[in-house]
Amino acid sequence: CITGDPREVRDVRFPTSLGQHGSDAMHSDPDYSAAYVVLDTDCGLKGFGLTFTLGKGTEIVVCAVKALARLVVGKSLQEIVSNFRGFYRLLTSDGQMRWLGPEKGVIHLATAAVLNAVWDLWARAEGKPLWKLLVDMDPKRIVSCIDFRYITDVLTEDEALDILVKAQEEDQMLKEGYPAYTTSCAWLGYPDQQLKQLCTDALKSGWTKFKVKVGADLEDDVRRCRLIRQMIGPNNTLMIDANQRWDVDEAISWVSKLAEVKPLWIEEPTSPDDILGHATIAKALAPLGIGVATGEQCHNRVMFKQLLQASALQFVQIDSCRLGSVNENLAVLLMAHKFQVPVCPHAGGVGLCELVQHLILFDYICVSANLSNRMCEYVDHLHEHFANPVVIQDAHYMPPKDPGYSCEMLESSVKRHQFPEGDVWKLHQNK
Amino acid sequence: CITGDPREVRDVRFPTSLGQHGSDAMHSDPDYSAAYVVLDTDCGLKGFGLTFTLGKGTEIVVCAVKALARLVVGKSLQEIVSNFRGFYRLLTSDGQMRWLGPEKGVIHLATAAVLNAVWDLWARAEGKPLWKLLVDMDPKRIVSCIDFRYITDVLTEDEALDILVKAQEEDQMLKEGYPAYTTSCAWLGYPDQQLKQLCTDALKSGWTKFKVKVGADLEDDVRRCRLIRQMIGPNNTLMIDANQRWDVDEAISWVSKLAEVKPLWIEEPTSPDDILGHATIAKALAPLGIGVATGEQCHNRVMFKQLLQASALQFVQIDSCRLGSVNENLAVLLMAHKFQVPVCPHAGGVGLCELVQHLILFDYICVSANLSNRMCEYVDHLHEHFANPVVIQDAHYMPPKDPGYSCEMLESSVKRHQFPEGDVWKLHQNK
Repeated sequence: CITGDPREVRDVRFPTSLGQHGSDAMHSDPDYSAAYVVLDTDCGLKGFGLTFTLGKGTEIVVCAVKALARLVVGKSLQEIVSNFRGFYRLLTSDGQMRWLGPEKGVIHLATAAVLNAVWDLWARAEGKPLWKLLVDMDPKRIVSCIDFRYITDVLTEDEALDILVKAQEEDQMLKEGYPAYTTSCAWLGYPDQQLKQLCTDALKSGWTKFKVKVGADLEDDVRRCRLIRQMIGPNNTLMIDANQRWDVDEAISWVSKLAEVKPLWIEEPTSPDDILGHATIAKALAPLGIGVATGEQCHNRVMFKQLLQASALQFVQIDSCRLGSVNENLAVLLMAHKFQVPVCPHAGGVGLCELVQHLILFDYICVSANLSNRMCEYVDHLHEHFANPVVIQDAHYMPPKDPGYSCEMLESSVKRHQFPEGDVWKLHQNK
Repeated sequence: CITGDPREVRDVRFPTSLGQHGSDAMHSDPDYSAAYVVLDTDCGLKGFGLTFTLGKGTEIVVCAVKALARLVVGKSLQEIVSNFRGFYRLLTSDGQMRWLGPEKGVIHLATAAVLNAVWDLWARAEGKPLWKLLVDMDPKRIVSCIDFRYITDVLTEDEALDILVKAQEEDQMLKEGYPAYTTSCAWLGYPDQQLKQLCTDALKSGWTKFKVKVGADLEDDVRRCRLIRQMIGPNNTLMIDANQRWDVDEAISWVSKLAEVKPLWIEEPTSPDDILGHATIAKALAPLGIGVATGEQCHNRVMFKQLLQASALQFVQIDSCRLGSVNENLAVLLMAHKFQVPVCPHAGGVGLCELVQHLILFDYICVSANLSNRMCEYVDHLHEHFANPVVIQDAHYMPPKDPGYSCEMLESSVKRHQFPEGDVWKLHQNK
């Protein structure tokens, strides 16, 4: 079963900026997009992978995926997964291309797209959803997928093996699902009337945890947060998200002024690179009962390692497309467990919900066995473009049952949204 | 003087891997390359800029430069430099493209290429070499080029202004030049006979400071380092460079075994992202008299800020193409001064010597006024392809006199080395 030539890497963009969906303090007009790759094999099986982007510049990631694809062509799935750590290292440490990262930015987003497709292919070949592939896998095999380079001072292979005893039966997840929170109600660009309507609807559908975008204007934040808190009542959970808008001191003073609405966490208060800054902020906000959450732009396991070492975050927000796919996310899940910090994955965008649900199910069943302060982000956009969209019941992610990693897009959707030649974009240009 | 359309971004590669030039423990076969951009203007003036790469993947950076170039087209030089901070922010914080970084990896390398061209254009418009443009500039104007976002907890505008008093007359630099060290003698792939010959030649030419690549094999490192120390004698300076080969604990034990050759510093002992790891290594090696140097892959000012805050490095190795051009390097020079850590720029590659000499001259004349433990890297390759190549006299960089930022390449060199269509690569493919 030899993997074929993945030349066909596509630039798929959705004009979400038209409705201010996804708008926040740093990204005022995102067009949710993806670099989408299909791995063909000579036995008919396909692997689907993607990485999430915000519109402009997706062509750069597509270019990077093509460059990395050269390292996949001609290899069999067996060859790759029998030494998955070695294959991960091959992609991330090519002697010429690692200069472009290493393991960060465009080249790492591209690595995620390629490896997501490989994991999808593997799960399909085994006839299982990815979470189940992982849950059934021998711990030694799981550990052999992880590149421990640069993290052995915090997590060794032996420690990883010790953590990976099956922690929990999967029945509970199959029955109840994994708890979710919603970000769909309170994007920064939404007018108040829309916020209210969306909150009302969400409460009716059983949602109990809500995230609000903040950071553009303090007065406006106070008003919006009070409004949401009033809508959801004192017993539901509120989180706030600044998307890196502030410097360190500014973050502390701004968030202190929002303490009255009792947010569980402040997400991305400052630069995603500022480990020491996050630590300072976390320390200052702890007396107010507000934790720090970050991770959607935390670019690799070395950064997560330090955020944990420095007690710089109280909620680990892994991302299925920013990190080097399942391989690197496994390392972060295990490190988070060692430091006993809950994992609350980033989702939304294009396909992030579809992907990351697999990782958090594995985390619960094989690593954490804990739901306290744990929940997975959910955003109610663009699921209709996927072959196996997420299933949410009563504000819980229900475990997917179809084989694979759930990121196959409908061919009709891909065609319509390809940039710039798809019908949607042709229309957009003609307006 | 409106800047024209910089569509012409070129992928220029030199087949340096053939001679093992540039080989180290993580990059065994680099083909020194550049994404090279020329900004045209309607008044005939041109700005030349580049960012350095290692071969494969340069096409990705070229793609990113083209994407950023859209933000330059149609602007006048005056418009850009009169609000240079704003223009820097425009390039690095585009609401859609910042997702691809932010300020790291491919997109930041591309930012460097574009901004290097803008600075070159500015210096040419003023008829001065870039270092002199900076030295003559009003401190307020200099500070207005810096984006202080995410660093105000360590350096404010007022503090920057206080630092920027003219520290030293430039006569000394014009007469003696800025001290350099050489990396050309001891690439990892060079056989012993070649090491010896190159050391002998370098000593004759007045070199007193030598860097050796290490990290692939401990026994081999001991042998090679002893050989070099023997060649250069006890009073000359030896530095060692591992190019990120080790984990934290491994770095400490490996370098301890090389302490006998009395290296001034160990460069890049581990992941460039591991601030806390560098701090642990620095603390462990301090009793042996060995400092930690890093920076050539330190991706932005936020990372340098933390390396300084954590006492994780004793030598700041700024890079003219990894950071966001002069703008971001100014921030790092000022922060390094505040922490009283010497700056020893990274150079070599393609054009890095040509570029960075301007920054270190400015640092001496306007910031540090200090040469203790300070020196600029020099590598004796590829200078012949530049219109105004560096001038080294008695192991010192002599201040450039031609207007601009010295990174204009000879058109004949560019044509021959363009990938894949240049003659050099056509020949290479036919072999």
